[in-house]
Amino acid sequence: MLIELSLSRDPNKPLQHQIANQIREFIRVGHLRPGTKLPSSRELAVQYDVSRNTVTHAYEKLFSEGYIETLKGIGTKVTDVIPDDCNAMDGPKDVSRPVAAAIRAPVVFKGHTLTIPNRSLPKPAIDFWPGRPNRDNFPLSTWRRLADEVLASSAAKLVEYGDPAGVPELREGIARHVSATRGYHCTADMVIVTAGTQESLNLLAKMFVANGTGVVVENPCYGGAAHTFESYGARLCPVAVDIEGIRTDLLPDDHISLAYVTPSHQFPTGSALSSERRKALLDWSYRTGAYIVEDDYDCDFNYGGRPLLSLAGASDGESVIYLGTFSKALGAGVRTGYVILPLALVGAARAVKTMSNYGHPWLDQAILAGFLRGDTYQRHLRLIRKAYFDTLKELIRRLSADFGNIDLRGTQNGMHVMWVLPEWVGPAQIFKQRLQDEGVYVHTISSGGAFDRASGYEESSILLGYAALSKSEVVTAAKIIARVAEANGNVSASTGDRSHLSRRQSLAIFESP
Amino acid sequence: MLIELSLSRDPNKPLQHQIANQIREFIRVGHLRPGTKLPSSRELAVQYDVSRNTVTHAYEKLFSEGYIETLKGIGTKVTDVIPDDCNAMDGPKDVSRPVAAAIRAPVVFKGHTLTIPNRSLPKPAIDFWPGRPNRDNFPLSTWRRLADEVLASSAAKLVEYGDPAGVPELREGIARHVSATRGYHCTADMVIVTAGTQESLNLLAKMFVANGTGVVVENPCYGGAAHTFESYGARLCPVAVDIEGIRTDLLPDDHISLAYVTPSHQFPTGSALSSERRKALLDWSYRTGAYIVEDDYDCDFNYGGRPLLSLAGASDGESVIYLGTFSKALGAGVRTGYVILPLALVGAARAVKTMSNYGHPWLDQAILAGFLRGDTYQRHLRLIRKAYFDTLKELIRRLSADFGNIDLRGTQNGMHVMWVLPEWVGPAQIFKQRLQDEGVYVHTISSGGAFDRASGYEESSILLGYAALSKSEVVTAAKIIARVAEANGNVSASTGDRSHLSRRQSLAIFESP
Repeated sequence: MLIELSLSRDPNKPLQHQIANQIREFIRVGHLRPGTKLPSSRELAVQYDVSRNTVTHAYEKLFSEGYIETLKGIGTKVTDVIPDDCNAMDGPKDVSRPVAAAIRAPVVFKGHTLTIPNRSLPKPAIDFWPGRPNRDNFPLSTWRRLADEVLASSAAKLVEYGDPAGVPELREGIARHVSATRGYHCTADMVIVTAGTQESLNLLAKMFVANGTGVVVENPCYGGAAHTFESYGARLCPVAVDIEGIRTDLLPDDHISLAYVTPSHQFPTGSALSSERRKALLDWSYRTGAYIVEDDYDCDFNYGGRPLLSLAGASDGESVIYLGTFSKALGAGVRTGYVILPLALVGAARAVKTMSNYGHPWLDQAILAGFLRGDTYQRHLRLIRKAYFDTLKELIRRLSADFGNIDLRGTQNGMHVMWVLPEWVGPAQIFKQRLQDEGVYVHTISSGGAFDRASGYEESSILLGYAALSKSEVVTAAKIIARVAEANGNVSASTGDRSHLSRRQSLAIFESP
Repeated sequence: MLIELSLSRDPNKPLQHQIANQIREFIRVGHLRPGTKLPSSRELAVQYDVSRNTVTHAYEKLFSEGYIETLKGIGTKVTDVIPDDCNAMDGPKDVSRPVAAAIRAPVVFKGHTLTIPNRSLPKPAIDFWPGRPNRDNFPLSTWRRLADEVLASSAAKLVEYGDPAGVPELREGIARHVSATRGYHCTADMVIVTAGTQESLNLLAKMFVANGTGVVVENPCYGGAAHTFESYGARLCPVAVDIEGIRTDLLPDDHISLAYVTPSHQFPTGSALSSERRKALLDWSYRTGAYIVEDDYDCDFNYGGRPLLSLAGASDGESVIYLGTFSKALGAGVRTGYVILPLALVGAARAVKTMSNYGHPWLDQAILAGFLRGDTYQRHLRLIRKAYFDTLKELIRRLSADFGNIDLRGTQNGMHVMWVLPEWVGPAQIFKQRLQDEGVYVHTISSGGAFDRASGYEESSILLGYAALSKSEVVTAAKIIARVAEANGNVSASTGDRSHLSRRQSLAIFESP
């Protein structure tokens, strides 16, 4: 990739600033897009006849700003996660035509990092991205058979508009599944099929959020939710989370329209909302009139004991909006999720869905409806539940062997855990970066896609999404994690931060799960 | 269907008002949904021990308000097209819990009728709904084969997130197709795949429209576009349309961000934008900085002469945003469309698409990408172009035989025509209603899904979407149209409105296409 720079030899304009500024601008206006490989510092130095150090300094500046990253064996490329102000352009730059039409994207994203989940990692790499399912478990042959079956009969459904709320058989299947497994006795006419939770959140934001609307979110929480609500003008009210879930004693009492929560397996901290707090949360909703948005994203994977009833199922039937997705049990490429609303809200939700896109493609819905018929889906869930649990047990076994008692949170269900690191390992961000250099991608709270407002977890914890990994990958990764932690601990010790010798002591603080 | 009413025998509250009010409320809050069949007036009268006249009057009131409709041989049901204020509820009604969360849907829809395109018509019915393709022409066996092929290899694409802008092969196929057939030499990285034009419009609205943003629309124009822009706060500037398309001499000079136009085949009037006005429109865009949004919704069907180049292809490459859809050439159930943007806008558009739903389902995209490979799609287009043209010719032949010279507009391309009715036929709305009673569904400008601000076409014209019909359906429909027009003309004559005898004179005014 050649980059066309226009460098001036004006001594008042340092070359490294010119290079950094121009490349940053290319990234900001979209000429250089996420993932684009940049020339090496040597190549760029030769091309523009500047010293290699000049280019290196320019690259370092862009790296520190989050615009580019350097991957071992790959080179330098534009980051997949666009920095905060990247969308804050106010119109196309350097064009001679008048600019009457200002791009509103900065308003939409209000200075927030947008996490784009598709990432191409260098191989070999072991990726602990949270919430990613294992492709080997996808029921491909069943899918293929169902696709063939639903396409066998008639083209009518492909040609005509369908119900914007979704294919009736699919909505019935969803209502059946949620009633049976989550104790929420809902009916098909309460279900709206969407292209996944992100669309579900947009739908709710369009229904409820205007400038200044109060929205409670957990702190930390799923970033896509917080940023979506904020993009519609919400006044976010982040409420702290501990090992029993959201701190219901800290809920604000007034002027809140929605409270977005993940009671089954808090994202990202992994905690399950305790019974007392469930009751407190529902009571708060009844008292204040705020709707609870229950995102039950990975509720299908429960590894011990009785699954907790959904909040919606425990509620009065008028207070909880329930979000589900097939991205976790099947895959994100299926792009299908759903919202289940109290009946009084269904009319407005249907209208918003219609106005947004007239509904979801028929074929995907028809296949999925077939998959939900009978016990195929239940059998599939049992299969992957066992596979995920096996991987999780291996992860716990290996990490415990190397680190002793570890503070792993969220091991009772879901597809990821949060590991509160032993103090001697040092800050999570540096640990993550060192592991990445070794081909193991773990995530901090924020790099894992969470919104965080000084919750304290960002520095102390990493997220390990294990569901997509094989046992042997977990074994390999655990070895590298132990080695890097050891080296990190030694570095910390030599700089006086923390003695490596205190390792066992700091480990003993935590109970194993 | 039983309706539970709570009727009081208070003489100050007429029973017919109580009945109408309660049913209207059920419809407004969504307990009675579009298409729901209501009890007959006789049944309801028996159930509540009131006179049948009372129920009939209540039903007539609801009918006049647009909440219900009566179909011959079917009975009374809730209308599919929800009346203006139907979404204007400001929260769930009659619930005892406090209401902190106000539904914003009335803001989103700002008092506009929402046309939901899926309608179940009584059989036998001949439906001239504009823009509906013929299901018999769907390439079902090819679709089935391609589905099987793309599902044969790997589940990775179903499991992982893909590029939010769309599957690369599909975007390449779209860029190739548009370059070849519309003279717009675009590349895959300018293409964003959406769930159809409605989503494309939402995407652009999110990018450009805030409260008060000036948006030019044609008057009349596609209602989905006008209402979408308005729902984001746009200040709509409707500009009149005549037989050469949008009146460029009436374009406002300042403070316009977007101009939404349909130059190939104006919706709904059918006109093609003349060469002079194309140039004038582009010059206006260069001068004011407003972006042109070119909705080329049915450009693939051209029946005579050389297709006009797209506006995007004639532009400087920085001024036109191009919208395309597969809903017309394939079907709405495929739910796939696209936006092609100048490069400077691509970054922001990708970000908005990501934030909206992380992209379109993979399977539909993969099948379509296969369909666009080689010349399969071109052969399909040739086939249906011929079929649509045959139907159109039959329609013109039959109507001309009965009505003499007729003012049919938009016969050079597309899937519908606008028929400016001979004056003696009377108002379009009544003609439409009488035809509907005979099982022939034609559409006025507004019932056909158009936005209209006193354009004058609403009373004079009807829309005939012919593409979905067989020749024999056209023959049957034309007979009924002639018979009903004759009767209508006689009624008009007897009430003194217009002499039936002037029929030939009024016809002679217009040139046949």
